[in-house]
Amino acid sequence: MLPVDLPGTVRDALLAPLVDHHCHGVRRDDLSRAQFELLSGEGGSPAPPGTTHFDTPFGAAVRRWCAPLLDLEPHAPPAVYLARRTELGAAEVNRRLLAGAGVVAFLVDASPDSHEPGDSDLEVLTAAEMGRHGGAAADELVRIERIERDVAATAELAVDYLDNLGEELTARAARAVGLKTVIGALCGLDFDPARPARGAVIAAANRRLADPKAPLTDHVLLRYLLWSAVDVARERGLPVQFHTGFGGQAGEPHRADPARLSGFAGALQPLGVPVILLHCYPFHRQAAHLAGVFPHVYVDVGLALPHGAAAAARVMDELLELAPFHKQLFSSGCRGLAETGYLGALTYRRALAGALGSRIAAGEWSTADAARIAHMIGSGNARRIYRL
Amino acid sequence: MLPVDLPGTVRDALLAPLVDHHCHGVRRDDLSRAQFELLSGEGGSPAPPGTTHFDTPFGAAVRRWCAPLLDLEPHAPPAVYLARRTELGAAEVNRRLLAGAGVVAFLVDASPDSHEPGDSDLEVLTAAEMGRHGGAAADELVRIERIERDVAATAELAVDYLDNLGEELTARAARAVGLKTVIGALCGLDFDPARPARGAVIAAANRRLADPKAPLTDHVLLRYLLWSAVDVARERGLPVQFHTGFGGQAGEPHRADPARLSGFAGALQPLGVPVILLHCYPFHRQAAHLAGVFPHVYVDVGLALPHGAAAAARVMDELLELAPFHKQLFSSGCRGLAETGYLGALTYRRALAGALGSRIAAGEWSTADAARIAHMIGSGNARRIYRL
Amino acid sequence: MLPVDLPGTVRDALLAPLVDHHCHGVRRDDLSRAQFELLSGEGGSPAPPGTTHFDTPFGAAVRRWCAPLLDLEPHAPPAVYLARRTELGAAEVNRRLLAGAGVVAFLVDASPDSHEPGDSDLEVLTAAEMGRHGGAAADELVRIERIERDVAATAELAVDYLDNLGEELTARAARAVGLKTVIGALCGLDFDPARPARGAVIAAANRRLADPKAPLTDHVLLRYLLWSAVDVARERGLPVQFHTGFGGQAGEPHRADPARLSGFAGALQPLGVPVILLHCYPFHRQAAHLAGVFPHVYVDVGLALPHGAAAAARVMDELLELAPFHKQLFSSGCRGLAETGYLGALTYRRALAGALGSRIAAGEWSTADAARIAHMIGSGNARRIYRL
Repeated sequence: MLPVDLPGTVRDALLAPLVDHHCHGVRRDDLSRAQFELLSGEGGSPAPPGTTHFDTPFGAAVRRWCAPLLDLEPHAPPAVYLARRTELGAAEVNRRLLAGAGVVAFLVDASPDSHEPGDSDLEVLTAAEMGRHGGAAADELVRIERIERDVAATAELAVDYLDNLGEELTARAARAVGLKTVIGALCGLDFDPARPARGAVIAAANRRLADPKAPLTDHVLLRYLLWSAVDVARERGLPVQFHTGFGGQAGEPHRADPARLSGFAGALQPLGVPVILLHCYPFHRQAAHLAGVFPHVYVDVGLALPHGAAAAARVMDELLELAPFHKQLFSSGCRGLAETGYLGALTYRRALAGALGSRIAAGEWSTADAARIAHMIGSGNARRIYRL
Repeated sequence: MLPVDLPGTVRDALLAPLVDHHCHGVRRDDLSRAQFELLSGEGGSPAPPGTTHFDTPFGAAVRRWCAPLLDLEPHAPPAVYLARRTELGAAEVNRRLLAGAGVVAFLVDASPDSHEPGDSDLEVLTAAEMGRHGGAAADELVRIERIERDVAATAELAVDYLDNLGEELTARAARAVGLKTVIGALCGLDFDPARPARGAVIAAANRRLADPKAPLTDHVLLRYLLWSAVDVARERGLPVQFHTGFGGQAGEPHRADPARLSGFAGALQPLGVPVILLHCYPFHRQAAHLAGVFPHVYVDVGLALPHGAAAAARVMDELLELAPFHKQLFSSGCRGLAETGYLGALTYRRALAGALGSRIAAGEWSTADAARIAHMIGSGNARRIYRL
Repeated sequence: MLPVDLPGTVRDALLAPLVDHHCHGVRRDDLSRAQFELLSGEGGSPAPPGTTHFDTPFGAAVRRWCAPLLDLEPHAPPAVYLARRTELGAAEVNRRLLAGAGVVAFLVDASPDSHEPGDSDLEVLTAAEMGRHGGAAADELVRIERIERDVAATAELAVDYLDNLGEELTARAARAVGLKTVIGALCGLDFDPARPARGAVIAAANRRLADPKAPLTDHVLLRYLLWSAVDVARERGLPVQFHTGFGGQAGEPHRADPARLSGFAGALQPLGVPVILLHCYPFHRQAAHLAGVFPHVYVDVGLALPHGAAAAARVMDELLELAPFHKQLFSSGCRGLAETGYLGALTYRRALAGALGSRIAAGEWSTADAARIAHMIGSGNARRIYRL
């Protein structure tokens, strides 16, 4: 499974169980080809006529690496792969792929990802089910924009809406190991880092309640929600995850650069609330810089590895140009398809193996340091930050 | 010519004739050293005293790879190369280099590139001549800002100007396989994606006609021109090419990031007009993302390959981190010098050979898939999109 | 010391003495572990509890490469390294590391870097001392924001403040080989490139003198100061260095992209004042583009190499995608720790060796060209530009 020969201790460290500190539930139902393709693409659109989302780096990796877990030859054609997937049934496929990831704990954002059209909560595995299928522990992440959606749907007065937001955040955080925000996709990461004034928040809440089913795009409320989450995180010693970098069609991609979060990260430094930058690609060098200059900022490259697939090694290696080793985390970013969970772990291990192997061979790092660093990134840092 | 050993089918696929879906006419006249240097640089300025534009990655590649086509040893000194170029004459040099590219069809923007100082239409080969010299078919691309320039030079009233623009676009598109815009260099790719209001357009047209020889920089007119082109493209089923990424001194380079075109690309999605992102460097990862999330967006790295030269493999490989294989195209971006056309094809083939070879060796892709993907990127995708 | 076998002339060119065209004075006093860690990090904060700044690419490189110069085994543990450092004493350590860099001339910004908390002028070596310790010549760079600070501290009237600024810049430039600005960290590189109007400058100067000890953040005064420096540079034929790319917590990282300096660089082109882009990472491709299109723009990757350490080769190779060879310079960006000076030279030589070796092996560059290019980047370009 690893692409290079490595000293035994380094190999063991790479193959040791991982903490997947950010994933979503995968679909529990059998998927048609159209559904599988939609979930494997980034944009929520079918591939153009005459083409297929299997003709992507991710699709090639599914055929190469997931096919053998379904008892097929590597590079199985898409139709063969999907037929076998249906034959085995979603539950068995999910078990094989999630268990194959070699994960000891999943931290799960159980909200269906907004990029997955038509998903409802019922269609995806809960955190507990993710753990059960993968033979791992499981904990919850609270997606704050999802809480807001639920609160907006029920509150009638602005003051209730604001009270309920705070109560719901507190209640959900009590059962969770971290909070998560997708504010970058909704208004860019270069939002005003200041806490919004009470008057502006109440006015915005009144506007919000006039159309509570619309997606939340008001900057004042998004910032208020985030600051409320920060207050809860601070009180309970939880980190806040930020989706950064590419993802779907929403938002302005260049404003998802985590460098634009620099001002807000600075504002959180005195509070001691850990800030975790998810995905980051193609701004992972920018994210590594923030992780280097701010003691409370952490980084992973999440979905970039399984999506980059055969090219994942470079992305990992670019992160290693600047990011402190105690600031890097592993996540699969898995969503919808259990394939992402398996490939997330596989491409992470292969990419890091390449990076460690080349540094050991060049005499740059000692074997002992390489093994230690693999343990830190694979699970140790996450255990420390999330207090697992 | 290829840097790695490859299975025969992959090798054949790489060496098969290419569709160069974006190039300019090359100069028909014999060039002095000063002219050659100016055309080989990006900025339109001579190299500083005591230096030469041959001391660039592109210059080194000309000496290494083009010299043998002129019967010289690899790495011939600049003076020797240019003397031999003059000895053979521009027509013979153009024939050798363009034919050497192994191209089956050139899609040609026959407007001289704005970065080429002093060029006029007469100095560069027409599309038909490019085809004849290169032993290939040739089709035309319509540069819309060039049409505007011609219309502005003759119209007297705003209403005529606007009518003529539409008529001229329609007439030229009838003979072309695609439209092309350089709006990114003129006002940044983050222009307002909305269709401008009629009143604002007429006011802007009146201002324009007061100084019709100035370069067009008015955002309202640029957007009007682009939307008019989109209407024509939609009617005739043509794609629209966008120059993105670096190019010359014009514009603000960071606003040439194709990620900033995301809103406009989204606006074009329901219209079904293909959007083709040219060059993209160093934002090719951003472009690959757009090609992944939007079903109608396509990408190449054009001039980045011959300019990057010995370093082209990394650029190609970065594009392959995320871009769907059915969304990538080949172009040389050739302009002024036939050397760019030859090096464009050569560096493309060498870079892709490296990427395919490493994936086959690592067992990531099958040989059959590698050959299929090489055919798609080299010509198949272009044939489908441009309906060649 | 070099990672690949190279022809003798190329090896000699790489090992020839370098001109380090941008560094700071290193600390003259013995450093506690806390001080050493602070100086080795980018952000001026201690590493979080349970972690250490030694667990970074830079920290690993210190243990690997600097330890042997202190008579230790490679990969010495941090505590052993620091104990030996104290045993030898700062003066001896500085001598060994600076002399080990193999530098023939240091160009020194003697102002302590703003990212080094608690530093005063007295704590760091002067330019002359840097040269003496390193067995090299030494020249001064004038940091213009530092001059402004001194002038603001003494002037009482706006008119005196402005007169003194000009006089002080002129006087200091008379003894220096270049001017340097950190305007990018103070207001972003996308400042208004126009020379500010006299009235606005006087109003800003009056505001400034009301609070002369605050850091200078006023855009009008920053631009005035820069334009004053440009006038002096033009008169004396000196280049102006711009800190670009990442550095510390200050500023908005995405606005440190040198592409945003494009308009100002264009404004300086007719004046013939060389513009030198320092560090640039992770925007070094953008910087290479500017160096390609503007005849007066130069580039290095400074601190990115010792900080990237084992991963430095990719950064150097990315610069070589586009940057003309006569436009690249070497600098260590050394500050605070003499380790940075040594590692700057070491990682530069190793990274360039890799790039040259692979190009020679692939037949892309001749041996003679490779040696010539190594000489140009290592010292020849700097001698020409700074008139050493």
